[in-house]
Amino acid sequence: MKLSIATTMLDAAHAEAARLNVAVCISILDAGTWPMAMIRMDGTPLGAIEVATKKARTSVLFQMDSADFAEVGSPGGKAYTLENTNGGLTSFGGGVVLKAADGSILGAIGVSGASVDEDIAIARAGAAALST
Amino acid sequence: MKLSIATTMLDAAHAEAARLNVAVCISILDAGTWPMAMIRMDGTPLGAIEVATKKARTSVLFQMDSADFAEVGSPGGKAYTLENTNGGLTSFGGGVVLKAADGSILGAIGVSGASVDEDIAIARAGAAALST
Amino acid sequence: MKLSIATTMLDAAHAEAARLNVAVCISILDAGTWPMAMIRMDGTPLGAIEVATKKARTSVLFQMDSADFAEVGSPGGKAYTLENTNGGLTSFGGGVVLKAADGSILGAIGVSGASVDEDIAIARAGAAALST
Amino acid sequence: MKLSIATTMLDAAHAEAARLNVAVCISILDAGTWPMAMIRMDGTPLGAIEVATKKARTSVLFQMDSADFAEVGSPGGKAYTLENTNGGLTSFGGGVVLKAADGSILGAIGVSGASVDEDIAIARAGAAALST
Repeated sequence: MKLSIATTMLDAAHAEAARLNVAVCISILDAGTWPMAMIRMDGTPLGAIEVATKKARTSVLFQMDSADFAEVGSPGGKAYTLENTNGGLTSFGGGVVLKAADGSILGAIGVSGASVDEDIAIARAGAAALST
Repeated sequence: MKLSIATTMLDAAHAEAARLNVAVCISILDAGTWPMAMIRMDGTPLGAIEVATKKARTSVLFQMDSADFAEVGSPGGKAYTLENTNGGLTSFGGGVVLKAADGSILGAIGVSGASVDEDIAIARAGAAALST
Repeated sequence: MKLSIATTMLDAAHAEAARLNVAVCISILDAGTWPMAMIRMDGTPLGAIEVATKKARTSVLFQMDSADFAEVGSPGGKAYTLENTNGGLTSFGGGVVLKAADGSILGAIGVSGASVDEDIAIARAGAAALST
Repeated sequence: MKLSIATTMLDAAHAEAARLNVAVCISILDAGTWPMAMIRMDGTPLGAIEVATKKARTSVLFQMDSADFAEVGSPGGKAYTLENTNGGLTSFGGGVVLKAADGSILGAIGVSGASVDEDIAIARAGAAALST
């Protein structure tokens, strides 16, 4: 995935956050979980910086959105304690996995700072720009 | 346990994973929890690498399969929070302890990447090659 | 320091790197060392991601460019082993401290991936956009 | 890079180590520094396990053999303290970067346990199998 695509997604997510009138941190990781681009909007809680990245990291590592990971890896899920692996994972929404047309993993976008529903909406708005 | 035995087990587990048409990471540790051999099949989620090793580590450290450890060390078990010791343990199936004929611990094999039931089947297929 | 200023600096540094025909990671931290914005150009060595941030972190923590810190904190300097504090610092050029007109610290920009001289030139091009 | 290529390289390196009559750990990482395959030969010092991986990690992160990295990142090099970044790097030979025909990074092979010269020879024997 090229930087130009990552920044296009970042801009789309940023615009959606502005439209919702919330402040978030947006982080984009590549298929190996390495950072490609990130921004933190004015007024975002500082704690959201790591959370945005961990959501995206969770999505890459298990090839699914972080909201879906919650059903597997947290208490009551089939693989309880999975969320304690890989330096600690994030079992709630706001991380969206990015896939190519052939299904291969390209990376993930993670958003944190607003409500979980808003974080998800912003991450999806960013992910939607992948195919444009 | 010699490397030649570890790679024989690795090949047997790999063959079982291929037969089940799943992609997993397979890790073999010695009686001191030190890595002896590992492979990651194409398409395996990256998060499974650490999990495979942690399952095997859990099995060596407490001399039991990781599925059995779950009954002891997780919420509701006799020793809840045991899973938070030793750098974090893994309380679900896929780690199988390896013992010599006299009951002494030789090490463990850990598998992750497919469903818990599949991971267990693959680990057992690997462990079965120990005595051949 | 607002995000709009950070991204303006990021764009100026990015343009300078493109002009020099090198690939770098560019990271901007605020006065509390928290990430504000970052990009990694296509082809940048992955190891440069942490280095860019550590250069900026060093600059904020000791209120000086990382090249100047080298004279203080590395072997032969007045405070040798200072570089081993704060989780590890970076004693070579590419981190530039950002100050307001009244001298107060606003944050820092860190660049890594090219030669030290190029990293410094790119960081300075970014920092120069602060006052525009 | 596919697992079948990684294991072919692993076998070639293993054969070279056997020919030299030394015991080493051999580790192969992908372009994102994630483990693909590893073996530890009987009698290898346990400390060599982490070193083999760190050599390969250094090679991927800075897109060069670990022996070349030593000239840049260790005391007296242009970027002294670089070796303290990214969780600690390894500034001596035995890590060899793997590149595709177009120059893109595929990963790296790291070898540790024998003398530095032997480690390098074994890693190169493994890397040579990449193109076969």
